[in-house]
Amino acid sequence: MSRQMRAVVLRHPGGPDVLRVERVPEPLPGLGECLIDVTLTGVNFDDLVQRAGAHPELPLPAVPGVEAVGRRRVDGRRVVALLRQGGGYAEVVAARDAYTVEVPAGIDDAQALGLFEQGGTAYGALLLAGRLRAGESVAVSAAAGGVGHLAVQLAVALGASPVIGLASTPAKRQFVKGLGADVALDPADPELADRLREAAGGMGVDLFVDSVGGPVARAGLAGLAPFGRLVCLGWRPAAADGPGTAGGDLPAVADVDDVTGVVALTTAQLARGSIGCAGFWMRHVVDHRELLSGIAERLFALAAHGRLTVHVDRTVALSEVGAAHAAVAARATTGKVLIDVRREM
Amino acid sequence: MSRQMRAVVLRHPGGPDVLRVERVPEPLPGLGECLIDVTLTGVNFDDLVQRAGAHPELPLPAVPGVEAVGRRRVDGRRVVALLRQGGGYAEVVAARDAYTVEVPAGIDDAQALGLFEQGGTAYGALLLAGRLRAGESVAVSAAAGGVGHLAVQLAVALGASPVIGLASTPAKRQFVKGLGADVALDPADPELADRLREAAGGMGVDLFVDSVGGPVARAGLAGLAPFGRLVCLGWRPAAADGPGTAGGDLPAVADVDDVTGVVALTTAQLARGSIGCAGFWMRHVVDHRELLSGIAERLFALAAHGRLTVHVDRTVALSEVGAAHAAVAARATTGKVLIDVRREM
Repeated sequence: MSRQMRAVVLRHPGGPDVLRVERVPEPLPGLGECLIDVTLTGVNFDDLVQRAGAHPELPLPAVPGVEAVGRRRVDGRRVVALLRQGGGYAEVVAARDAYTVEVPAGIDDAQALGLFEQGGTAYGALLLAGRLRAGESVAVSAAAGGVGHLAVQLAVALGASPVIGLASTPAKRQFVKGLGADVALDPADPELADRLREAAGGMGVDLFVDSVGGPVARAGLAGLAPFGRLVCLGWRPAAADGPGTAGGDLPAVADVDDVTGVVALTTAQLARGSIGCAGFWMRHVVDHRELLSGIAERLFALAAHGRLTVHVDRTVALSEVGAAHAAVAARATTGKVLIDVRREM
Repeated sequence: MSRQMRAVVLRHPGGPDVLRVERVPEPLPGLGECLIDVTLTGVNFDDLVQRAGAHPELPLPAVPGVEAVGRRRVDGRRVVALLRQGGGYAEVVAARDAYTVEVPAGIDDAQALGLFEQGGTAYGALLLAGRLRAGESVAVSAAAGGVGHLAVQLAVALGASPVIGLASTPAKRQFVKGLGADVALDPADPELADRLREAAGGMGVDLFVDSVGGPVARAGLAGLAPFGRLVCLGWRPAAADGPGTAGGDLPAVADVDDVTGVVALTTAQLARGSIGCAGFWMRHVVDHRELLSGIAERLFALAAHGRLTVHVDRTVALSEVGAAHAAVAARATTGKVLIDVRREM
């Protein structure tokens, strides 16, 4: 008879209220997996996409959540893991060894969790897809968000200059400047492309990391310098849209649809400006063990030296996950949203 | 009374037969320009676009030709120049000093001409837009062409591995392997994306430099590795298509239309594969004097060390330029097509 645990189970797609805590059997670790007694997991934007029913790779019913930190049951060591198949909103997860790294002593659980998935995404966007070089200008959209606030700090730590953060309220822009950004801009500015060019010194931005899409991505493209790149995060699966095709319309995603605007472009448009557009999906790091652990090591080292800090917006109990989803969908959060799975409400 | 010279004058758009030699006044150098007594000029793909009437930036009548090498009249020094406004198919050109560099003693006129514009384009595609690093795999389409044959050699010289060249005939593929390519592929292979991945070692190509577009560019995108980039050359102006828009249909370009296929893509497609697409237009190098002269210096040095050689397909007289255009449009040339403006026919 398997042991029981508390977890948030998604039985059918819908709004934040479909997320309910249940008692379910603990997962059984497969080959190359281990159990982790979770302390913290986090809310990621892809969880909202899954909850809304737009993630065909993750069938329901399911326990959402793509990351967890805690103690590995087999040896009691503190580890952080990425969970490609979900399962994070739970007291216990089965994590693949290949997607798990040990947490150094100087890094607490909240920092480790934020650095591994969202810090890794910021790193991949800036360096793997964006090929940032020191001295280049960087702009980051949703710069007060989970990935964005780490991308701003990482760009500064990597020697980018100037670093420009986009955030939707004066309070968030103040937060972004506190992270080390030289300039904070409003993404709703109708002259955003011009503002970006001015902030970057006239020629345009060398690297724009965007997780918003739509008009913000288009302004980002228009505001790039020659040889500048727009890096797009926030892949949304479209079932009918195979690799190598031009892409189709994406399914509507309830409350999150307005912030996942896919942008169409042409090779002629890119050539005319000598600009580039690249996508980044963390899966391509996760599949490459040496890359994944190398990035984690570098991010933990930067955090240990005070160059990179995960800002926690709020920590909620499992029973409060629905409300946390609503806050993330409304872009009402600043930094990382944590779930303390042991907290009772 | 101004001095007269022989030049090819394009009075109205059309096929290769509209290119006629006339006696016209020598150009008058403006501020920051100098006269060059030309020895060689070259046929570039953009000249065909202009001749077909699809280049709104260059009004008619005009003397086509965007490059020239010869002696600067004011001091007799050997120089090579880019001619943004055309004028190259002539015995004398007025060249902007900012777009002119002196040719070192060890580099002959034909080498200097090929290295400056087409070598510069290969350099920009690989390093400025493509951000090539040593050890990455590179594929080049139209690899036996003017730009392509230099891109293959430059990729090898920069430490790319493997280097894959695409060329349409067995003879051209033999030529491409002779340039140092590890593999030569047929761009018409219906499984081109798979062939590219295999040739690159399974994961896909890190950098694909494409001047063909259409199905070749689409196969190139599908054959990219995670974090791989497709760099598109061959910008074609579309009058109704402003910066930052998604691009429209391009005007038909007579005999060259089939090889200028613009490809549409979406940010979702790029994110799904963690791949990128960048454009490169030599104008963005030309506008930046230090970059332009730095690139020329590096290319001349590589040529002096035998790492980079311009292969001359043919050298024609001004009166034979129409036939040379037809050969380039038919992709019947291998390497560079030169025009010896002093040769009488």
